[in-house]
Amino acid sequence: MNDHVYKKIELVGSSPKGIEDAVANALTRASKTIRNMRWFEITETRGHLEDGKIAHWQVTVSVGFTLDA
Amino acid sequence: MNDHVYKKIELVGSSPKGIEDAVANALTRASKTIRNMRWFEITETRGHLEDGKIAHWQVTVSVGFTLDA
Amino acid sequence: MNDHVYKKIELVGSSPKGIEDAVANALTRASKTIRNMRWFEITETRGHLEDGKIAHWQVTVSVGFTLDA
Amino acid sequence: MNDHVYKKIELVGSSPKGIEDAVANALTRASKTIRNMRWFEITETRGHLEDGKIAHWQVTVSVGFTLDA
Amino acid sequence: MNDHVYKKIELVGSSPKGIEDAVANALTRASKTIRNMRWFEITETRGHLEDGKIAHWQVTVSVGFTLDA
Amino acid sequence: MNDHVYKKIELVGSSPKGIEDAVANALTRASKTIRNMRWFEITETRGHLEDGKIAHWQVTVSVGFTLDA
Amino acid sequence: MNDHVYKKIELVGSSPKGIEDAVANALTRASKTIRNMRWFEITETRGHLEDGKIAHWQVTVSVGFTLDA
Amino acid sequence: MNDHVYKKIELVGSSPKGIEDAVANALTRASKTIRNMRWFEITETRGHLEDGKIAHWQVTVSVGFTLDA
Amino acid sequence: MNDHVYKKIELVGSSPKGIEDAVANALTRASKTIRNMRWFEITETRGHLEDGKIAHWQVTVSVGFTLDA
Amino acid sequence: MNDHVYKKIELVGSSPKGIEDAVANALTRASKTIRNMRWFEITETRGHLEDGKIAHWQVTVSVGFTLDA
Amino acid sequence: MNDHVYKKIELVGSSPKGIEDAVANALTRASKTIRNMRWFEITETRGHLEDGKIAHWQVTVSVGFTLDA
Amino acid sequence: MNDHVYKKIELVGSSPKGIEDAVANALTRASKTIRNMRWFEITETRGHLEDGKIAHWQVTVSVGFTLDA
Repeated sequence: MNDHVYKKIELVGSSPKGIEDAVANALTRASKTIRNMRWFEITETRGHLEDGKIAHWQVTVSVGFTLDA
Repeated sequence: MNDHVYKKIELVGSSPKGIEDAVANALTRASKTIRNMRWFEITETRGHLEDGKIAHWQVTVSVGFTLDA
Repeated sequence: MNDHVYKKIELVGSSPKGIEDAVANALTRASKTIRNMRWFEITETRGHLEDGKIAHWQVTVSVGFTLDA
Repeated sequence: MNDHVYKKIELVGSSPKGIEDAVANALTRASKTIRNMRWFEITETRGHLEDGKIAHWQVTVSVGFTLDA
Repeated sequence: MNDHVYKKIELVGSSPKGIEDAVANALTRASKTIRNMRWFEITETRGHLEDGKIAHWQVTVSVGFTLDA
Repeated sequence: MNDHVYKKIELVGSSPKGIEDAVANALTRASKTIRNMRWFEITETRGHLEDGKIAHWQVTVSVGFTLDA
Repeated sequence: MNDHVYKKIELVGSSPKGIEDAVANALTRASKTIRNMRWFEITETRGHLEDGKIAHWQVTVSVGFTLDA
Repeated sequence: MNDHVYKKIELVGSSPKGIEDAVANALTRASKTIRNMRWFEITETRGHLEDGKIAHWQVTVSVGFTLDA
Repeated sequence: MNDHVYKKIELVGSSPKGIEDAVANALTRASKTIRNMRWFEITETRGHLEDGKIAHWQVTVSVGFTLDA
Repeated sequence: MNDHVYKKIELVGSSPKGIEDAVANALTRASKTIRNMRWFEITETRGHLEDGKIAHWQVTVSVGFTLDA
Repeated sequence: MNDHVYKKIELVGSSPKGIEDAVANALTRASKTIRNMRWFEITETRGHLEDGKIAHWQVTVSVGFTLDA
Repeated sequence: MNDHVYKKIELVGSSPKGIEDAVANALTRASKTIRNMRWFEITETRGHLEDGKIAHWQVTVSVGFTLDA
C-alpha cells in the first residue's frame, strides 16, 4: 500500500429506512462507475420531513478509492 | 418556496433502541405543537450507560419548519 | 446593559435576490412577534438551484434579542 | 429517563462580576418561564470593555430542559 | 426524491463585483457539463487585493447534483 | 454526583452490521476492564469497503467513567 | 513570490449597505497605513439591529500583506 | 525539554462552586496516580441544573504529563 | 457606530488566581498602548501545572478596538 | 485572473519518507490527467504503523485547478 | 479486521529536527509499552522558540492500537 | 512566568523546500523586529503549484511573544 494515491469524492445517499441504508444506496450507485473503493466517512446526517414524519434520511459520505498508477 | 422564512429549533430525543428511533421520538413529540416541519440535521449522538451497557441513545437534532407568512 | 439577559434564535431567510435580502426577509418576519432584536450572525449560506441557475438564496442567521426583566 | 425528549435553547447572560455569575443570571431569568431545566453548556465567553476595563461579561449558554410528554 | 443519490463537487468562482456574482460565475461554468444541479453551500469567502482595493472576490461553493440512476 | 471526577477514553468499535452494533462491540470490550462507565459520544463514523460493499463499520466513541475517589 | 513572508491581521468593517461594502470600508481604512495588502478572507458576518431592521453590517476579515524583506 | 514525550488524558471535574474549582478537583484526583503533570486545557464547560439552579459545574480538561524516558 | 473600523488582536493573560483575573491582566497591559478597546472573546483556556497543582492560568483573548478614522 | 473558475478535488498521497513526499506523490499522479493545477492545502496528516514504526505517511490534500473557459 | 476494538491515545512528541522526527520519537516511546499500534493522526503542530529560533518541534498525535480480544 | 502577558501574531512563511523551512523563514523575518518570541503553532499548510509541481510551500503560523511589563 506504500505509494498509492487515493481520491476522495463526496456523495449523498438517501433512504426512507435509516442511516446505514442511505449510505449503502450511495455506495451501490458509486460502484457502477468507480472501482477500488476503500473507505468512507459520514460527514453529515440530515433528513427530509413530511407530515411530521421522516420521509427519507440523507447521509453525506466522503468515499476514498485507489487511483490506478 | 421563494420567500419563505424558516425557524430552526434544537431537540434531544432518546431511545433504548438506536439512533433512528431516538430521532423519531424527538420528532413525534415536536409534531404535537409544530406544524410544517421540513428537515432535520443530527448535531450530536450520545448515549447513557448502565452496568456496562447502552441504556438509551440521546440524539440531538436541529429541526427546521416553515413560519406562517 | 449590565445585567440583561438575551435569547438567541435561529432563522433561515430566503430570497431570489441575494444574501442581504434573504437576511432582511428573515428579520422582517421575526419582527412581527419579537421586540428588542439586537444583533444577528450569519451561520450558513446556501442556495437552491433550478435549471442551472440560482432560484433563491437561503441564509441561516442566529438572532439575539433582549428578554424583558 | 428512557424516552424523554428535551429542548435546547440558547441564552446570553451578563454580569460585571464574572463568568459564573453571568451564567447564573441567564438561568435565573430562564427559570421564570421554563420548568425542568436539566443541564447547560457554555458555547461562547465574551465581554464588553469601557475605559480599558471589563464592564460586564457576556456568556452564551445552551440550556436543555425536559418537554412534558 | 426518495432513493436519489447526489454528488457534491467544490468550485471556486471569482468576480470583481461581489459574492453573489462570484457564485453565479462558478455555477454558470459548471452548468456547461453538469445537469441536475440542486443546491449549493458557500464554504469560504476570500478576495484578492491590488493597490489596496478588492480586485476580485473568490468564493468557494460546494454544489450538489443528482446522479442519474 | 457532586464532586465526582470522570475520565474519558476514546475507542473504535467495528461491526459488519451497523453503527449501533459497532458502538456496542466497543463498549462490551471496554466493560471487561472498566467499571462505572456512564456515557459515550460518537465522534467519527467511518467504514471499510471491499468489492464495492460495506465490509464493516468503524465508529469512534468517547466514553466517560467515574474514577473511584 | 518564493521566499516572501506575509503577516495577517484581523479587521472588522461596518456598513449600513451590505457585506461587500463593510469589507471595502475595512480595507480602505487599512490601506492608509499598510502597503502591499494581498488577500483577505471573511471569518465572521454579523450585524446590529435597531427597531427590527439592520442598522449596519459588521464583517470580520483576515487580511494578508507582504512584509518587506 | 528537548526530546521529551508527553501523554494527554481527558478528565471531567465537577464542583458546586465554579469552573476553577471543578478543574482543581479533577487535577487533585489525577495527581494521586500521575506524576509530572505539566499543563491542561479546558475543552468543555457544562453544568447540571436542579430546581432551576446550578447544582454543580462539570468541566472537561485535557491534561499533559511527561512520560518517563 | 455606523462606519467604524475595528482591529482585533490576540493576547494571552496569565494569573495564579483564575480565569477572570488572567483576562483582566491581559487587558490592563493592553490598555497601556491601546485606546478604545470595545470587546473581547475568550478563545482558549489553558494552565500550567507544578507539583500537581495549578501554578497559573493562561487565557487567550481576542480583543477588538476602534481604529481612529 | 478576474473571472476564472476553479475546481477543487481531494487526494490522499502516501510515502514512507515523510509529509512533503506524500504530497508530491499525490500531485505527480494528479498531473497525469489534470492541467493547470494552481494550489493545494493539507487537510489531514495520518500514517500507517507496522511493528511500532511508521510504515508510510498518508496526507490528504485539497487541490485547486483552473477550469477551461 | 471485522470485529476488532481499537483504543486511541494522545501523545506529544518533541524533536529539534522537525515534524516527522517528533512523531517518530512519540511512537518509539509508546512502542515500549503498547503492542499492535495501527495508525496515527497529527492533531496539532507547535514549537518552542529560544533566541528567535526553533528550539524544538512539539507534535500531538492520536495513536490507534488493537485491544486484545 | 506567573503574570506575564503574551501577544500572538499570525505570519505566513514560504519556501520551495518544505514545511519546516517555510516556518523557519517566517520566524527569521519576525525576529528582526520582535524580541522574546516563545512559541508557535501551525494553523494552515498550503502550497503554490506551477507546471504540476510544488513551487513553494506556504505555512501559516501563530506566534506568541512576551510583552514587556
